Amino acid sequence: MILTIREVDIKTGKREIILNEDDSKKLGVQPGFRVVLSKKNFKRIFFASVSSTIIKSGEAIVSPDSGLKKGDVVDVSNAPPLKSTEAIKKKVYGNKLNADEIRAIVEDIVDENLSHIELASYVTAIQTVDLDDDEITYMIDSMVSTGESIKFDYDVYDVHSIGGVPGNKYALITVPILAAAGLRVPKTSSRAISSAAGTADVMEVLARVDLSMEEIKKVVDGTGAALVWGGALNLAPADDKIIRVEQPLGLDPQAQVISSVLAKKRSTGIGTLLIDIPMGEDAKVKNEGEARRLAERFIRIGTRIGIETSCAITYGGQPLGRAVGPAIEAQEALRALEGKQTSNSLIVKSIELASILLETSGVVEKGKGKDISRSILSSGKAREKMLEIINAQGSRGIEKSDDIELGKYVEEIASPTDGYISYVSNKAIVEIARTLGAPFSKKAGVWVSKKIGDKVEKNEGIFILYSENRDRLENALRLSRKLRLYEIEGMVLESIHGDLYKTLRGVKK
Amino acid sequence: MILTIREVDIKTGKREIILNEDDSKKLGVQPGFRVVLSKKNFKRIFFASVSSTIIKSGEAIVSPDSGLKKGDVVDVSNAPPLKSTEAIKKKVYGNKLNADEIRAIVEDIVDENLSHIELASYVTAIQTVDLDDDEITYMIDSMVSTGESIKFDYDVYDVHSIGGVPGNKYALITVPILAAAGLRVPKTSSRAISSAAGTADVMEVLARVDLSMEEIKKVVDGTGAALVWGGALNLAPADDKIIRVEQPLGLDPQAQVISSVLAKKRSTGIGTLLIDIPMGEDAKVKNEGEARRLAERFIRIGTRIGIETSCAITYGGQPLGRAVGPAIEAQEALRALEGKQTSNSLIVKSIELASILLETSGVVEKGKGKDISRSILSSGKAREKMLEIINAQGSRGIEKSDDIELGKYVEEIASPTDGYISYVSNKAIVEIARTLGAPFSKKAGVWVSKKIGDKVEKNEGIFILYSENRDRLENALRLSRKLRLYEIEGMVLESIHGDLYKTLRGVKK
Repeated sequence: MILTIREVDIKTGKREIILNEDDSKKLGVQPGFRVVLSKKNFKRIFFASVSSTIIKSGEAIVSPDSGLKKGDVVDVSNAPPLKSTEAIKKKVYGNKLNADEIRAIVEDIVDENLSHIELASYVTAIQTVDLDDDEITYMIDSMVSTGESIKFDYDVYDVHSIGGVPGNKYALITVPILAAAGLRVPKTSSRAISSAAGTADVMEVLARVDLSMEEIKKVVDGTGAALVWGGALNLAPADDKIIRVEQPLGLDPQAQVISSVLAKKRSTGIGTLLIDIPMGEDAKVKNEGEARRLAERFIRIGTRIGIETSCAITYGGQPLGRAVGPAIEAQEALRALEGKQTSNSLIVKSIELASILLETSGVVEKGKGKDISRSILSSGKAREKMLEIINAQGSRGIEKSDDIELGKYVEEIASPTDGYISYVSNKAIVEIARTLGAPFSKKAGVWVSKKIGDKVEKNEGIFILYSENRDRLENALRLSRKLRLYEIEGMVLESIHGDLYKTLRGVKK
Repeated sequence: MILTIREVDIKTGKREIILNEDDSKKLGVQPGFRVVLSKKNFKRIFFASVSSTIIKSGEAIVSPDSGLKKGDVVDVSNAPPLKSTEAIKKKVYGNKLNADEIRAIVEDIVDENLSHIELASYVTAIQTVDLDDDEITYMIDSMVSTGESIKFDYDVYDVHSIGGVPGNKYALITVPILAAAGLRVPKTSSRAISSAAGTADVMEVLARVDLSMEEIKKVVDGTGAALVWGGALNLAPADDKIIRVEQPLGLDPQAQVISSVLAKKRSTGIGTLLIDIPMGEDAKVKNEGEARRLAERFIRIGTRIGIETSCAITYGGQPLGRAVGPAIEAQEALRALEGKQTSNSLIVKSIELASILLETSGVVEKGKGKDISRSILSSGKAREKMLEIINAQGSRGIEKSDDIELGKYVEEIASPTDGYISYVSNKAIVEIARTLGAPFSKKAGVWVSKKIGDKVEKNEGIFILYSENRDRLENALRLSRKLRLYEIEGMVLESIHGDLYKTLRGVKK
């Protein structure tokens, strides 16, 4: 059926065509069906919507960024069945997929030929049924080959957290330490999936993160490091499309985490990689057994695809530092770099991770990593390097922590009693931060005034909530009363402050 | 934020509001976010889409059937988090849900507060993680209480197939036999989920199936039986909303099948129920062990909620009869009722199932069920009863099988060689029928000219494909060349025609 594009509009998060009801009947197409639009040098799958008023017969409206423009004349026909949807069903039924099936899925994800319903089913099945080492390797291959790659003329290193602990902004401290010590670190990171802020969301408060291939090379050539959003680089485009479904579902399946991290690291040519695995009751990984299994899986598959991989299992039983949310985390990281009073746990973790990579790479003698990292931080060299990186990427004009603005609607959650904080819930804090608007609203976030082991008096503040929207602040307060957000006990049982921060060195092959 | 509804339009399959881009930014709302629209005596969740051209600031477009009309002034705000989405995530992570969590999910499904992404994740998790007896019982309770119920003044009986075998139109023969023998059978059935035609889709070719509560009572009072679409009765509205996601995914999880069948049967007051479980390599249930486990689960949970349940495990290794698709199946069923030459397997199964219920109910002596059913069919009494039912429900004007029209685009798939058919694929036939347009296009379908054990000569037809759309017919032909649709062997190994049709009587408590 030949139709004219009347309007290029309507953002619904998928590639959509709005057909007139009569035309849709003639085609035998129901809302949600896949159709193929074709004209000279153009052939693409769209999802149908139907209207009898806003569009007349013979015309159609398509969503933006679909490669069509107003006035284009296209042939609309029913789409043939996709191999990828059969493969997804096969996985849902618990079967192992082969390389062709995985490639079909990844290619259709990249081309946006799958509906959100199909993608959600796929992500859920990956969570519940899982992928084995072969399937993950196929996945990495397909993700790399459907994306672009950077080649650096020197060895490049990276450190990457699997996430799951709120406030995990260590990279803004670790990366400049590494670069100041002479390692080249083209750090790509993702935006928040199920968390309140990804490293890219936090860095974006300070600098542009959507750098092109050329730009990132220039930044790393000039400063030794970059902190950019992987999605903008088209390294593994499948990943950022999967995230669109993972995010509303709050899911982040392990097999997908491994595939996506290793695919992106391979596409940026990383030869030596440190994976941070936060562990804790409320983190993604609950106990040491689970953490060790994941670490071994990362090391096994990393080695298989030619990346020297080690893993650090870190304490993730409560937020890292005190800030959770894009702007507030950026502020806390700058405070740490500025040498101002800040959370010890953040400093210790940032230094520990830098130290492991410095020693692994051989630029620093075994056993000297921590001291050297600490002196780079305390001397102000790390801060200087960070400002260099910010300027090279495109500064937002923020030079120091005090320049950062937070949401104008602010409420404090106060303690109903005297005592010691015995529990702070990662999950509840994330849910509250997301309700406040994070990660989309940069200025939304939570400040954790009291952490586990801290003494608190009746009516003293435990959390401060920031939002740019009054509704969202009220919803978050309402939610905080329903959730098990923290616990207070009469006496200190155990202090797990900075000094007791637990770092396990991962197995290295 | 106060907005005026400018237009009530755009069918996308969900309750949607199109906001102007500036308004969406002010609200902090991204495409796909949940917002609450409220005005006097109205408060409902909508999903946001965003446009900068088709709608200006201060106005909005909403989807039809959302309870709003053009010119309405509504307050739009961010929606608070839902308990049901947390419950779905809990299930995805493999945990058991309690009654409150299940009720939250069912209520939000009924109110259409869940996105298709969330629903797809839920359905996939039910398939991969499963529900236990307690969870299914909570599910039934919630489905019944969120729907309406019919009360009959007499005992009512029902027979229901879990599906999975194409062409399973036995109910159009079994139900009139039962009614002619004096049993009251208010049969509710669903539309196709992952199949090419549900009983409701087939019956709709002959009569109205979207009867109201009052209408169905009148039909059963007058004729002794009805064959209607359960979805129109609002018996378990959650089910028909879940189907909207199950259908594009081609999924139909067992726990959902049991909940939905038993909930609907309880809502129609069924006291005695026969479940048909087709079994075969290509059916939903692969082997006798699986079939027995499902039968026991049905009987256990049915008994727990007060329905006397028995199960028949039937042969489902190839299509039942020869027709697959709404109109062509209705035609085959009428042929059987008219006593014309037709598939023996269809006759045998229809009689077997009628016989079990007639004996269970006590209206017929044990051991006499088959003979009595057969004589009701061969005497023409079943046909007479069927026409009564069709007329009572609202006939489409079809009096005999020859009145039924099929798709005007027709192609035959011919045999490349001489031999005997050794395999016919249920799955491939369903996929082809769906590609042809079934179940949405009534006249689309497949005629299986040759079944397992049949002799076929080179160039003789094995299948006939019908479609109302040339694209779809071509796609189906292309697909048929890729799929393992049938197999031919040089000699007959085993004939599993009518007489060898396998019927196992289920355990009865």
